Amino acid sequence: MYDDILLTALREDIGPGDLTTESCVPANRQALGRFVAKEGGMLCGLDIARRVFTLLDAAVTIQSDFTDGDTFAAGDVLGVVTGPARAILTGERMALNLLQHLSGIATATAEAVRAVQGAHAQITDTRKTTLGLRALEKYAVRTGGARNHRFNLSDGVLIKDNHITAAGGIEKAVAATRARIPHTLKIEVETSNMEQVREALRVGADIIMLDNMDDEAMREAVAEINGRTLVEASGNMGARDLARVASTGVDLISIGALTHSVRALDISLKFD
Amino acid sequence: MYDDILLTALREDIGPGDLTTESCVPANRQALGRFVAKEGGMLCGLDIARRVFTLLDAAVTIQSDFTDGDTFAAGDVLGVVTGPARAILTGERMALNLLQHLSGIATATAEAVRAVQGAHAQITDTRKTTLGLRALEKYAVRTGGARNHRFNLSDGVLIKDNHITAAGGIEKAVAATRARIPHTLKIEVETSNMEQVREALRVGADIIMLDNMDDEAMREAVAEINGRTLVEASGNMGARDLARVASTGVDLISIGALTHSVRALDISLKFD
Amino acid sequence: MYDDILLTALREDIGPGDLTTESCVPANRQALGRFVAKEGGMLCGLDIARRVFTLLDAAVTIQSDFTDGDTFAAGDVLGVVTGPARAILTGERMALNLLQHLSGIATATAEAVRAVQGAHAQITDTRKTTLGLRALEKYAVRTGGARNHRFNLSDGVLIKDNHITAAGGIEKAVAATRARIPHTLKIEVETSNMEQVREALRVGADIIMLDNMDDEAMREAVAEINGRTLVEASGNMGARDLARVASTGVDLISIGALTHSVRALDISLKFD
Amino acid sequence: MYDDILLTALREDIGPGDLTTESCVPANRQALGRFVAKEGGMLCGLDIARRVFTLLDAAVTIQSDFTDGDTFAAGDVLGVVTGPARAILTGERMALNLLQHLSGIATATAEAVRAVQGAHAQITDTRKTTLGLRALEKYAVRTGGARNHRFNLSDGVLIKDNHITAAGGIEKAVAATRARIPHTLKIEVETSNMEQVREALRVGADIIMLDNMDDEAMREAVAEINGRTLVEASGNMGARDLARVASTGVDLISIGALTHSVRALDISLKFD
Amino acid sequence: MYDDILLTALREDIGPGDLTTESCVPANRQALGRFVAKEGGMLCGLDIARRVFTLLDAAVTIQSDFTDGDTFAAGDVLGVVTGPARAILTGERMALNLLQHLSGIATATAEAVRAVQGAHAQITDTRKTTLGLRALEKYAVRTGGARNHRFNLSDGVLIKDNHITAAGGIEKAVAATRARIPHTLKIEVETSNMEQVREALRVGADIIMLDNMDDEAMREAVAEINGRTLVEASGNMGARDLARVASTGVDLISIGALTHSVRALDISLKFD
Amino acid sequence: MYDDILLTALREDIGPGDLTTESCVPANRQALGRFVAKEGGMLCGLDIARRVFTLLDAAVTIQSDFTDGDTFAAGDVLGVVTGPARAILTGERMALNLLQHLSGIATATAEAVRAVQGAHAQITDTRKTTLGLRALEKYAVRTGGARNHRFNLSDGVLIKDNHITAAGGIEKAVAATRARIPHTLKIEVETSNMEQVREALRVGADIIMLDNMDDEAMREAVAEINGRTLVEASGNMGARDLARVASTGVDLISIGALTHSVRALDISLKFD
Repeated sequence: MYDDILLTALREDIGPGDLTTESCVPANRQALGRFVAKEGGMLCGLDIARRVFTLLDAAVTIQSDFTDGDTFAAGDVLGVVTGPARAILTGERMALNLLQHLSGIATATAEAVRAVQGAHAQITDTRKTTLGLRALEKYAVRTGGARNHRFNLSDGVLIKDNHITAAGGIEKAVAATRARIPHTLKIEVETSNMEQVREALRVGADIIMLDNMDDEAMREAVAEINGRTLVEASGNMGARDLARVASTGVDLISIGALTHSVRALDISLKFD
Repeated sequence: MYDDILLTALREDIGPGDLTTESCVPANRQALGRFVAKEGGMLCGLDIARRVFTLLDAAVTIQSDFTDGDTFAAGDVLGVVTGPARAILTGERMALNLLQHLSGIATATAEAVRAVQGAHAQITDTRKTTLGLRALEKYAVRTGGARNHRFNLSDGVLIKDNHITAAGGIEKAVAATRARIPHTLKIEVETSNMEQVREALRVGADIIMLDNMDDEAMREAVAEINGRTLVEASGNMGARDLARVASTGVDLISIGALTHSVRALDISLKFD
Repeated sequence: MYDDILLTALREDIGPGDLTTESCVPANRQALGRFVAKEGGMLCGLDIARRVFTLLDAAVTIQSDFTDGDTFAAGDVLGVVTGPARAILTGERMALNLLQHLSGIATATAEAVRAVQGAHAQITDTRKTTLGLRALEKYAVRTGGARNHRFNLSDGVLIKDNHITAAGGIEKAVAATRARIPHTLKIEVETSNMEQVREALRVGADIIMLDNMDDEAMREAVAEINGRTLVEASGNMGARDLARVASTGVDLISIGALTHSVRALDISLKFD
Repeated sequence: MYDDILLTALREDIGPGDLTTESCVPANRQALGRFVAKEGGMLCGLDIARRVFTLLDAAVTIQSDFTDGDTFAAGDVLGVVTGPARAILTGERMALNLLQHLSGIATATAEAVRAVQGAHAQITDTRKTTLGLRALEKYAVRTGGARNHRFNLSDGVLIKDNHITAAGGIEKAVAATRARIPHTLKIEVETSNMEQVREALRVGADIIMLDNMDDEAMREAVAEINGRTLVEASGNMGARDLARVASTGVDLISIGALTHSVRALDISLKFD
Repeated sequence: MYDDILLTALREDIGPGDLTTESCVPANRQALGRFVAKEGGMLCGLDIARRVFTLLDAAVTIQSDFTDGDTFAAGDVLGVVTGPARAILTGERMALNLLQHLSGIATATAEAVRAVQGAHAQITDTRKTTLGLRALEKYAVRTGGARNHRFNLSDGVLIKDNHITAAGGIEKAVAATRARIPHTLKIEVETSNMEQVREALRVGADIIMLDNMDDEAMREAVAEINGRTLVEASGNMGARDLARVASTGVDLISIGALTHSVRALDISLKFD
Repeated sequence: MYDDILLTALREDIGPGDLTTESCVPANRQALGRFVAKEGGMLCGLDIARRVFTLLDAAVTIQSDFTDGDTFAAGDVLGVVTGPARAILTGERMALNLLQHLSGIATATAEAVRAVQGAHAQITDTRKTTLGLRALEKYAVRTGGARNHRFNLSDGVLIKDNHITAAGGIEKAVAATRARIPHTLKIEVETSNMEQVREALRVGADIIMLDNMDDEAMREAVAEINGRTLVEASGNMGARDLARVASTGVDLISIGALTHSVRALDISLKFD
């Protein structure tokens, strides 16, 4: 399913050939390696790492007691890869890059989800993903227990201030959009004050985004909206802000940092 | 030059069409936006951001007093984008993602370069780059003033412990590699103790990597090698370690974190 | 914007080269042709036909008093194409194919829209489009004045009987979907009787599709739903049925025949 | 063999993922569906529909007592598809689109072939095919019992009036073409009156197309040509005209409507 | 027209970047180079070489007094390339490879054409072309004054001994082929003795290939066929054999060596 | 590994379909063919030829007593191909083209290697390869026992006279390059006289190319360099020159003719 991404990346990483491996490793040599967690977290990308290897050589297998979404501790063996040594050595870096990156996202997402546990709010991602890796990163966000925001500019409508200005006001923007888009899509309007919230509500927005509002303003908006639309809080939210924001009663909290500034988890591949 | 990457990413981000913009923004509307730095750093990706917009509409232009590699302060206007409003709004997110990500890498690289200033050592990147973005990220590393390590598995040889084991020792690995590869490539051998350093030296390695050695070991290795090969220090090095490692006399310090865990710089696009 | 589709089609139609034209037509010969309507209808595809020619030779131009969405009568000159004769003759068939096919869709769509004029209902298309041409055909439907249904399986949710069975009932299907999809998407449930309508309503569907119901059933469903969700009528509707179905009070009528069985409009290209 | 077309179409139809199916249908659920004919006709596309499913999941199979080219009656079960429910539901629409479209072409072709049965003339298609689907549609025409005209502009020569004008007459056009093309290709000349027929004959055309001539003119041309070239009748021929045109003695009758205005056959997929 | 081939080849030759040129040559440096013939021959590929450079940088131009098909002597300046030095240096090798290879084919072809001058026979190429370069090489053969044989397996029919065996004889093979292929294609049958020639003639072949026959046999075949079909002589023919073979009266002589074993012409690019 | 090249070539050679084979050969017919050497040489491309067939039909197999790099005599059976007759006949030409071309390169390379046997020098190829086939041709050179020069412009540095001029001298060119390129690459400088050799040596070149020097000059250069860099002899070297050049003491002799003017080996496929 992600073969296009993986093949592009393999071509990028290998180029005309893995000279070191082809020189040093006999073609019939077998190898066994263990993915070992150097720190705890949530696993994401095991099937994808497996696919990296099988694209290089169908004979590589990964055995594991874990599956994507499981949590692990430092020292855990996340999987045992066996098969032709050449394919394993050539694919090692890319498999690790993916596993570390996606597990990093899932782990950060799970932390954010935990931070709002008990509250009504759900965590979502944004479009601030790594170029070309959106499908993988959104999968990691779902693995971490959060919801996805729209995948791209055609499967969700988000009317921002510039759209509002260009259309001549929120009412005109919403009307023009409703006339143009499939009826299967909701219309979300970005607002930054109560006046905009009220207009969005009046003209029939399906979702209202509260952009960079303080807690009091968010509470006021939630009260005004009173369940008539979904309410999404947005704006450079850090891990510490989440519980507080959730307590305002918003339905969704979107966090760009889940994908645009994620720290790769430390996982290594140890060979016998 | 990076059009393949950019077109793939535009297709990913736009899908069948930017519904919001097509609905709200008249086709002939013009717009003017300013890229504003929310924090200081080193600029990287201005031409690439420009290309994102011109791939959408050739009439978009970006004027700027800055060029890639320049440093800027919080509040600086990094560029003024003008042209058809639809293309600018549709490309905004992707242009920003790139500018933030690449400037983040360049800024972190420049810091690392500064940390070893005065010492003999040079900073290099690794292959721990984001899938599909290696060419862009290596460009950002060069912009930040560091050198690139090999681009892929075919334009550089790095004999690691697994290769050594498979080949039956350092001597055999180096010999097999030398017989197979173009004579235009150097051979680098990863070592983790003095015994390996001495064998690599004896069998004619061109570069010796000191992997995860402590300062004393590195000093000893540098003394032993005594300029007969290049010496590269490697191993989860943080910003704080660099000056200390550089003082051991190594020629190169490679840092995976420059590209695999980079924090995006905060840059926004403000419209009139 | 549709270049990928057009280039694929040009390669299909031309193969290694247009032997007849290359043999008979001098490279510097100019030509002038007129697109003439052999029957009346609504124009769609003029810019796309223009792009076919300019992909072959940038020097070809099309002048026209018409624009997509205009209606025309038999005998009208829809455009005058001028430029290098080779490119015009080589691209003629494909430009005509497109113009005839898309104008056929727009014309049929406009007729359907006219048939429900005065009623509340809107016409929409379906996913029953020609393989590979969905973007073009959905554009023709919009040109004809109707709305688009979802573009693909990821930008709209339509829970059909098989999904309901697999999930264990409407309630479970809706709940599972709501937990998985972006909050920007509505959930549509296909129903074939009042019991299903009531359950869909109860569990919070956003859109209820009435599949192959007779007029009385549709009226009953519309009354029961009473504006709480959108109501879409579906099921092999012909041109004659539209006004009658619209009178039941449904919000949307989806018609697969707009795209899956369209008659190409008769347009020819006459050369001076 | 048609994988490129099918993969492009699957990407178009699925986008980033089939949200409804992924939400409602457990990954290990199996399904069984029957392709049921709602009207009689000739089957075409069974192997292609099978390939649609196996591209999604290699475990899907289709059992059938029919094979492409068989005729069926309303109510017949054309095939039984079994396998993972997700792949079957996700591929359902596209498999049906193909089966309905190609069977529609094969059925219309078989009717045209029947209409000229007993006469000497053979039915052929034209280049008026759906963009991107020519290979599939020409296969459906062969399945229906007719012959294919040239596949593209490089595997057949058809000198039309514009080519004749550009070359300076039929004689020059034929001579220029003969000098340029592979000797394995015949040269066809389009004519609209007896003078042109005679010149085409005189300069050695291999095939003469009679374009939009009435029956008397065609009879006269056939008599004049007297077997020295193939004779092809062309020009907006409907089903009713075929027997009459065939009686004029032409060798071939080409019909654009076989592919450019085909009605999809009504076939459905019923699940247990 | 050949952009796909050229872009693939540029990616192959450049990889992630031309390190030498980027390091040594300032971005704004201009250059002027002269393509100089080291030996005489026929020019082919000038426009293609020009395209190689403009794909790298649209500002590169080539001025020339020659055009493809012109003959030149050792020492002649075949073109003067000017523009940005980086693009010229990076593209130099590939432009030269093409110019040398295609001019080599055109020169060898022109020699073969000259060898049969005065005789009735024409020279043609075969499908023994370089993988991926057939379009370019067939163009060079035409430039050299010979005709092209079929472009691929779908635009010409050549029934060889294995096809005959599989079909159960020449008669069955020709009949099966005639029933399946477009009527725009001729049918060629490969024969190796008079019995086969007579059967091919009897069953209506359009072209008869005489495979590896001696002169006497070819003369006899030509007499027997007596103009009723085209006659093609084939079989490892060298430059010395051509006049002799042409004297047997065949219509066509096909020569695989024109493309499968061509010697590159010696052309260099001299810089000021 | 070479699938992209092979699929492109198969599409080129087959086009929309192999009409002759589809017409004459029943779908279930099996065939057995023998690759027979018409002249002696070194085998290269057996696995690649096998892949050509299995891309057409996975049921085709090739049995052989030979493997790439083995030498064979005229008359030897190089492999026995069995499987579905259609795939074998359709793939025959391309499999043979590859086998003949690559074996031609391997054979010529092996001859060159033999010519310098006993001397210190090694043979290498150049970038004068066939467009699009570099990976295959470099593999054939390795099969023939020689070494590869750089694969493309990014995995090796070769500073030529034009680079030197643009940079302002050898010293500046080498310094600029060293500052820009990965430290894993050597720097080669092209020289044509002793003055340049000495400067290249002084500024730290890793490899010195002696371009078109006579034997005496090469001897002098080798003595001057005295092992401090690798020395590569270059310049239109023919088979007869090799032993003589090797005797000058150079380390490497690069020969463009190995790939740019290779004669295809005569191998045929004989069917039972």
